[in-house]
Amino acid sequence: MPGDESKQMLTGPEVLKHNSQDSCWVIVHGKAYDVTDFLPEHPGGQSIILKYAGKDATAAFDPIHPPDTLDKYLPSSKHLGPVAMETVMREDEGVDEEEEARQERIKQMPSLEECYNLLDFEAVARRVMKRTAWAYYSSGADDEITLRENHSAFHKIFFRPRVLVDVTTVSTSTSLLGHPSSVPFYITATALGKLGHPDGEVCLTRAAGTHDVVQMIPTLASCSFDEIVDAATDKQTQWFQLYVNKDRSITRKIVAHAESRGCKGLFITVDAPQLGRREKDMRSKFSDQGSNVQASAGSSVDRTQGAARAISSFIDPALSWKDIEWFKSITKMPIVLKGVQRVDDTLRAAEIGIAGVVLSNHGGRQLDFAPSAIELLAEVMPALRARGLEESFEVYIDGGVRRATDILKALCLGARGVGIGRPFLYAMSSYGVAGVERAIQLLKDEMEMNMRLLGVTRVEDLRPDLLDARGLSARSVGSPVDSLSLGAYDPLVAPGQRVSKL
Amino acid sequence: MPGDESKQMLTGPEVLKHNSQDSCWVIVHGKAYDVTDFLPEHPGGQSIILKYAGKDATAAFDPIHPPDTLDKYLPSSKHLGPVAMETVMREDEGVDEEEEARQERIKQMPSLEECYNLLDFEAVARRVMKRTAWAYYSSGADDEITLRENHSAFHKIFFRPRVLVDVTTVSTSTSLLGHPSSVPFYITATALGKLGHPDGEVCLTRAAGTHDVVQMIPTLASCSFDEIVDAATDKQTQWFQLYVNKDRSITRKIVAHAESRGCKGLFITVDAPQLGRREKDMRSKFSDQGSNVQASAGSSVDRTQGAARAISSFIDPALSWKDIEWFKSITKMPIVLKGVQRVDDTLRAAEIGIAGVVLSNHGGRQLDFAPSAIELLAEVMPALRARGLEESFEVYIDGGVRRATDILKALCLGARGVGIGRPFLYAMSSYGVAGVERAIQLLKDEMEMNMRLLGVTRVEDLRPDLLDARGLSARSVGSPVDSLSLGAYDPLVAPGQRVSKL
Amino acid sequence: MPGDESKQMLTGPEVLKHNSQDSCWVIVHGKAYDVTDFLPEHPGGQSIILKYAGKDATAAFDPIHPPDTLDKYLPSSKHLGPVAMETVMREDEGVDEEEEARQERIKQMPSLEECYNLLDFEAVARRVMKRTAWAYYSSGADDEITLRENHSAFHKIFFRPRVLVDVTTVSTSTSLLGHPSSVPFYITATALGKLGHPDGEVCLTRAAGTHDVVQMIPTLASCSFDEIVDAATDKQTQWFQLYVNKDRSITRKIVAHAESRGCKGLFITVDAPQLGRREKDMRSKFSDQGSNVQASAGSSVDRTQGAARAISSFIDPALSWKDIEWFKSITKMPIVLKGVQRVDDTLRAAEIGIAGVVLSNHGGRQLDFAPSAIELLAEVMPALRARGLEESFEVYIDGGVRRATDILKALCLGARGVGIGRPFLYAMSSYGVAGVERAIQLLKDEMEMNMRLLGVTRVEDLRPDLLDARGLSARSVGSPVDSLSLGAYDPLVAPGQRVSKL
Amino acid sequence: MPGDESKQMLTGPEVLKHNSQDSCWVIVHGKAYDVTDFLPEHPGGQSIILKYAGKDATAAFDPIHPPDTLDKYLPSSKHLGPVAMETVMREDEGVDEEEEARQERIKQMPSLEECYNLLDFEAVARRVMKRTAWAYYSSGADDEITLRENHSAFHKIFFRPRVLVDVTTVSTSTSLLGHPSSVPFYITATALGKLGHPDGEVCLTRAAGTHDVVQMIPTLASCSFDEIVDAATDKQTQWFQLYVNKDRSITRKIVAHAESRGCKGLFITVDAPQLGRREKDMRSKFSDQGSNVQASAGSSVDRTQGAARAISSFIDPALSWKDIEWFKSITKMPIVLKGVQRVDDTLRAAEIGIAGVVLSNHGGRQLDFAPSAIELLAEVMPALRARGLEESFEVYIDGGVRRATDILKALCLGARGVGIGRPFLYAMSSYGVAGVERAIQLLKDEMEMNMRLLGVTRVEDLRPDLLDARGLSARSVGSPVDSLSLGAYDPLVAPGQRVSKL
Repeated sequence: MPGDESKQMLTGPEVLKHNSQDSCWVIVHGKAYDVTDFLPEHPGGQSIILKYAGKDATAAFDPIHPPDTLDKYLPSSKHLGPVAMETVMREDEGVDEEEEARQERIKQMPSLEECYNLLDFEAVARRVMKRTAWAYYSSGADDEITLRENHSAFHKIFFRPRVLVDVTTVSTSTSLLGHPSSVPFYITATALGKLGHPDGEVCLTRAAGTHDVVQMIPTLASCSFDEIVDAATDKQTQWFQLYVNKDRSITRKIVAHAESRGCKGLFITVDAPQLGRREKDMRSKFSDQGSNVQASAGSSVDRTQGAARAISSFIDPALSWKDIEWFKSITKMPIVLKGVQRVDDTLRAAEIGIAGVVLSNHGGRQLDFAPSAIELLAEVMPALRARGLEESFEVYIDGGVRRATDILKALCLGARGVGIGRPFLYAMSSYGVAGVERAIQLLKDEMEMNMRLLGVTRVEDLRPDLLDARGLSARSVGSPVDSLSLGAYDPLVAPGQRVSKL
Repeated sequence: MPGDESKQMLTGPEVLKHNSQDSCWVIVHGKAYDVTDFLPEHPGGQSIILKYAGKDATAAFDPIHPPDTLDKYLPSSKHLGPVAMETVMREDEGVDEEEEARQERIKQMPSLEECYNLLDFEAVARRVMKRTAWAYYSSGADDEITLRENHSAFHKIFFRPRVLVDVTTVSTSTSLLGHPSSVPFYITATALGKLGHPDGEVCLTRAAGTHDVVQMIPTLASCSFDEIVDAATDKQTQWFQLYVNKDRSITRKIVAHAESRGCKGLFITVDAPQLGRREKDMRSKFSDQGSNVQASAGSSVDRTQGAARAISSFIDPALSWKDIEWFKSITKMPIVLKGVQRVDDTLRAAEIGIAGVVLSNHGGRQLDFAPSAIELLAEVMPALRARGLEESFEVYIDGGVRRATDILKALCLGARGVGIGRPFLYAMSSYGVAGVERAIQLLKDEMEMNMRLLGVTRVEDLRPDLLDARGLSARSVGSPVDSLSLGAYDPLVAPGQRVSKL
Repeated sequence: MPGDESKQMLTGPEVLKHNSQDSCWVIVHGKAYDVTDFLPEHPGGQSIILKYAGKDATAAFDPIHPPDTLDKYLPSSKHLGPVAMETVMREDEGVDEEEEARQERIKQMPSLEECYNLLDFEAVARRVMKRTAWAYYSSGADDEITLRENHSAFHKIFFRPRVLVDVTTVSTSTSLLGHPSSVPFYITATALGKLGHPDGEVCLTRAAGTHDVVQMIPTLASCSFDEIVDAATDKQTQWFQLYVNKDRSITRKIVAHAESRGCKGLFITVDAPQLGRREKDMRSKFSDQGSNVQASAGSSVDRTQGAARAISSFIDPALSWKDIEWFKSITKMPIVLKGVQRVDDTLRAAEIGIAGVVLSNHGGRQLDFAPSAIELLAEVMPALRARGLEESFEVYIDGGVRRATDILKALCLGARGVGIGRPFLYAMSSYGVAGVERAIQLLKDEMEMNMRLLGVTRVEDLRPDLLDARGLSARSVGSPVDSLSLGAYDPLVAPGQRVSKL
Repeated sequence: MPGDESKQMLTGPEVLKHNSQDSCWVIVHGKAYDVTDFLPEHPGGQSIILKYAGKDATAAFDPIHPPDTLDKYLPSSKHLGPVAMETVMREDEGVDEEEEARQERIKQMPSLEECYNLLDFEAVARRVMKRTAWAYYSSGADDEITLRENHSAFHKIFFRPRVLVDVTTVSTSTSLLGHPSSVPFYITATALGKLGHPDGEVCLTRAAGTHDVVQMIPTLASCSFDEIVDAATDKQTQWFQLYVNKDRSITRKIVAHAESRGCKGLFITVDAPQLGRREKDMRSKFSDQGSNVQASAGSSVDRTQGAARAISSFIDPALSWKDIEWFKSITKMPIVLKGVQRVDDTLRAAEIGIAGVVLSNHGGRQLDFAPSAIELLAEVMPALRARGLEESFEVYIDGGVRRATDILKALCLGARGVGIGRPFLYAMSSYGVAGVERAIQLLKDEMEMNMRLLGVTRVEDLRPDLLDARGLSARSVGSPVDSLSLGAYDPLVAPGQRVSKL
């Protein structure tokens, strides 16, 4: 039957027979596939597939794989054809208390209008997202110090606002890699959009279209690249984020395709030779596996590594400076290195004719204690200025941005633009396209207001002189607290309410 | 009937017919007004008026509008005359649980004598004020970082007190803009006094009169300007705070009037080309609107922006340095720029013959991450001294002042006086005039005591030498905490009580 | 009857007739006194006496007044003689819930052996002391910033311990003002010992005798000066702390008496021209007065100022440098200025031939934001060394000392000795003499152990080289926290317990 | 009977007769011993032995004494021979609620696979270990400031990662004291392993063998030295940690034995002339003694000092630099000084031909406020480099290490290797050998991953240039918090859930 063009409709019981490592079939979107030979090659490991051997794997498959995955990677001979889904026994999943509680929280979630800033979406998403999805999006490396430092580093900078400037008309528009944008921020690339919303990354595309915001398309999207490009309007600018494959011919093909579909920039990720250890993600994975884990207690090291590892095994850890010339030879898109974390690496990029860098630590998801981008930016820009490169070479940052004031600080220091990732995922996961649109609108409102209050009417007038950034390089690691003394101290209290005496 | 001098008494049902955008009447203080034509011009938007179309709007009208508003802005032809209020159906507002709980808290509020400092009033006010009023007074921009930094920045300064100085007699008196004052602090301008107390700003005037304290009259007072001036004694000094209108003829008229009524200083607000986003205020507004908000969930961006936006649309964002000469030409009052936030802007003000500046970030209500005034003061004064301007040019600060030590620090650094806003609003909202009087008395007591302990008997002897201000420019943004380690650490505890064994 | 030598026994009803401002008698320790004329002169105000007019005032009188007070200050003509106490109606004080709860806590207090350090006593005392007593001892000025900074400033200093030093024999002995002491710390002067323990300051004297520790006798002791001296052994060293009276003849008499009784040092308090505002103390006072306070709500400023004000009205705010020569003329005791808070004042003291200073801010009870003594010490000693005065002039510090490491840090910086006050009061209040003895023993044990671990065997070898004091002058005032982000962040957690499924 | 070769079986009642100071027998592992004469010499004091006089002391004996203790220290004449254990009355220990609760927690402990990092083991151990054992392992000196600073000091350092480096192959191997090791960390010496696990230190030996990690054998092990060496494989490297005995002949014998059994390094502890005061440990001891403690309340100073003191009385406080030459004369093992805490002491060690030092403060268990090793390292290495000693002289650190990033920071600064103690004890106490193995594996995984993300493939390429260590010497001791203001501030909150109205 396999390979046969005139395929007959398969039944559930037929598929179910192939439920082992020796013969492993799975159903995805109503069609059966023979993945027996593919098992050892599966980037996410074979155990996750075997869990669905003989069964319908659609729900688990979707968020992790773009829809064209099976066509691309599984020989058509393994495509077994449609299954009569009514004959497939639905597993009685029992009562999932966690999911029930989540559904209850979703019913009570606040209206979109009650979200007044990007952090509000995060608070809502934390309550309404599936635990595994939340864990994947929100997690960072190790102790998540860098994850949080990314945000709090912005707090080390204060403004020096000008007054008595005519700010009747304020414009937030700018140009990024030579293309106009309504704002100096963009939606950066993040993986696995369907974990948060069934429509995945195209939600972001649509909201970006509404607001004339640049979107960077991720290699590891849940939607296929083409779906994302198709969802854009003619006037929309999209960039492409690239994880470089060990097999450069695949990379070449992907890059060529992105360029042909109109992408205006190639962002090569350089901070992820291997995807990071994110313990929240790993823990959420673990609990999914239920009681069988218990059996192995004490016996062997569990290799479960969360979603991040499952999807990234193709990435080439050998990628190096030597490869850059080759990239320049295969595309005319401006090339930007995403994830640069040192001054000297930035200068090297500028010197070899790269268009720019994104100073980034991958959202705090890779190396804990990597520096925050905003702090690094304050070191990078003077070095570029000293070499006269601050105009020709574009510097972007991402990580921890939640407020327009964050963006304004980066622009004052010299960034060309600022990438925002998680906040839009949270808006999308909670409220879909409308959520992302409101998130962008709120940020635009904040930005216009705050430029006015800074006494600045155009993006190009944002200068270091408007900042007090002296606090930037200072680390304030609190000394340990003296518990005994803290316990003995009787804190002052304001006058309390009177107790009515009846 | 409208415009008719011999107006007949209107009835509730008659008014109620005009309850739409097409014909919109409202009742205020027992008189009906036709505001149909005025709807599109209402600075606070028309929806808030339509909520009361055909009904009695007095309760909502009062805190936001000085009593002369309707006379000033609505043509007399739209004044429809008295309404027989017994015929107006009172809306059954149902049981307002929140208000009932508040009334209960008011019954149990502590006696005035139990308030020992300015912060005590704040704690009481938080419990007894209406939520919307509290939200309007207490809120700040964005994450309220500057709001709180204003207060905590004072904590970066320590004293270097002198001993063995004869401090039998201590005087806190000084002169502000050439007029004597019993103390070097003043009541600064704050909007919408009737939100906190039905008598509004005149409470502040009366307490200021009792204690010989200068009051700055706000443009956006709930009481009319004349009511506030009338409430003052002959010997009382009042200043006028000005929001500049897009229509300069209105501004000219207001300034001339203030001068004619005896105001001794003109404080032009320069840090508010647009009033800030204050999310607490916005959120409190939102909840007021009840269930109809829900209907629009997911559909459109809600434009509700809290009280601040509603009252400020007349302010001119084009106000600039070029306007200053004009102001000098229209008044003989000394002109002070309120809201200056940079050293160079201060110097510019001094150089063009302005009498002084108030270093201020508008109580943390405008641009988050604007610097605290006390920190800015420490940068401004050396620059003025270097130019020999420290005596002729008066520098004031406001924001975050809660203790006499705060005031003493500012004066040691070189401030002429210190403005205090919210604490007096909280005292007024909780205890009326007596509250404000006690608040001032407490501050005077603290000040006299602390001057004595500093070894200083006169305001003019407060000098930088009495401070250790080395900590001022340091930002201490705590590094992210290591949650796992914090959770694993077993804190030391003092010996516990013995458990009786029976 | 008054003034009559052959006094008859008075009865309760007789005394009770004199219960007003016009004729005010009170009973103290079984004897009646006519205090009518004395009312206006009472340093603590007359209202507190009138509360006991016609009644037995012993319980309120005792902690505040040394036993010889009535003999000293009330003419013998006003001593009315003994009262038949069985005829005095005991006031039914009703059920005092607070006191009952305290008695319950006392029953369950931990054994003395469970206290392992000075902070343990503080934790116990907080639970078992009367609220007013705890409030008086533990309170500080204003926001109690200096109170706590005194302790935490020691945390800014780390050690640089030597190793491979023969530390078989370690000695903590030293000499203070030329007299030997077993340790380089002393019990400093604190007021109103009977608030904490019925025997008052003699508890401290006895424990000091046991351990060969110097005690500084306070002017404001609950015990009389002579009682305290009498309680000492022959070999014990005592110093005398002096509040200077407006009437210098009283001061001269007191000083001469102290010298004649063998005091070895005169410590003149210079940081208290007026006693501080301590709000905890004020609040505790307030609640004592019960419901009648309520009556005055809103009407007038309450002048209740806590215990501190009640006892200190005789102190001369005019005391100045000019007085020092006079002090040198009236005593041969070495004179030390207690409460110096600046480098220049220290140098001035050294230059005019004073024996030493105590760098102190009065335990954080006077001026909030006064510098901690340990921080000041680090500035003072280099200035003294630069003038060659570090040996001849003795510098002491007090405030915030809880650990031997605190003392060692002070000594390394150059202090001759360290005063400790509250911790011994807490030990005394909780466990009496045995408590103070154990507290001293614990501190000695810590000191010997820590000198050994520092690689030092003698007090005179404690040098600045053993410290890393670079952190001292840094102020770390935390930036305001970003509440929204803090609320949205999902902290990492260690693996939880498994939930048993039955 | 005693001393008789043909010993008869003793009975419980016979032994029980010898239950006093006059004649004291105890049973250990089924044999009786007469310890009457030994009582005064017992390093842990006699009271602890008398508690078991006439009874079976095995459970208390085991964790504190290596199995060969009785043979070594008690003359064979005091070995009374076997006891018929069935005749020994088991004490009815009643219901131990604490132990029952602990057993319950053990039943619910998470599976080993749920531990993802070293801190996870600590969190589990805290729940499942006996209180006294946890107290002994986890406690530190005084307020445990250094204990926690050891960990948090690492947080002051951030990385400067390189990108675009080929990191396909990463190796963590290195050589320590000339012997190869799979990793640059080792298991450092810690006392009393059987408190945590019945098998004691051999658990660590076995896991070290599995992973090719060096183990440092402690003088104060629960297992005998030979048991620990015997548990190692042929290829395993072991070092020996030495507490120097007052009787140098014992020390000489021990060192010679260690060398003969193949130890590859002699680590002489120099930071413990006396073992520290650890109050958690002392408190846990106290509560063990139950109600009889109560009897002595108020009467005398309790000398109970926790486990640390009980086991360390033999250590020589006279050990000094003069002894070093002697050590060099008695062994060919490279000698390393463990516990050096100053730059000059490090240089002195280097100059007199010592092989290296361990910068260490004994895990924060000796002198509180001793500097963290990582901070000290940053001062030591430049001094060594300036003298050209950084290669020939090996510097190790220990204290506070929990993450591979901690290790990498130390190596970048110049450490040769990093010692880890408590984390492996916690893993052992919770999960035995498998726990320690997983802990090592996790650390290896982290290390390989993080080297890759740093852009480094070999240990020797870890250089200071990869760090931003500017924050290291800064002390951030938080200023006291303003309680009143904190209480009055109304924190921002994200939109809440909607309340369903039914």
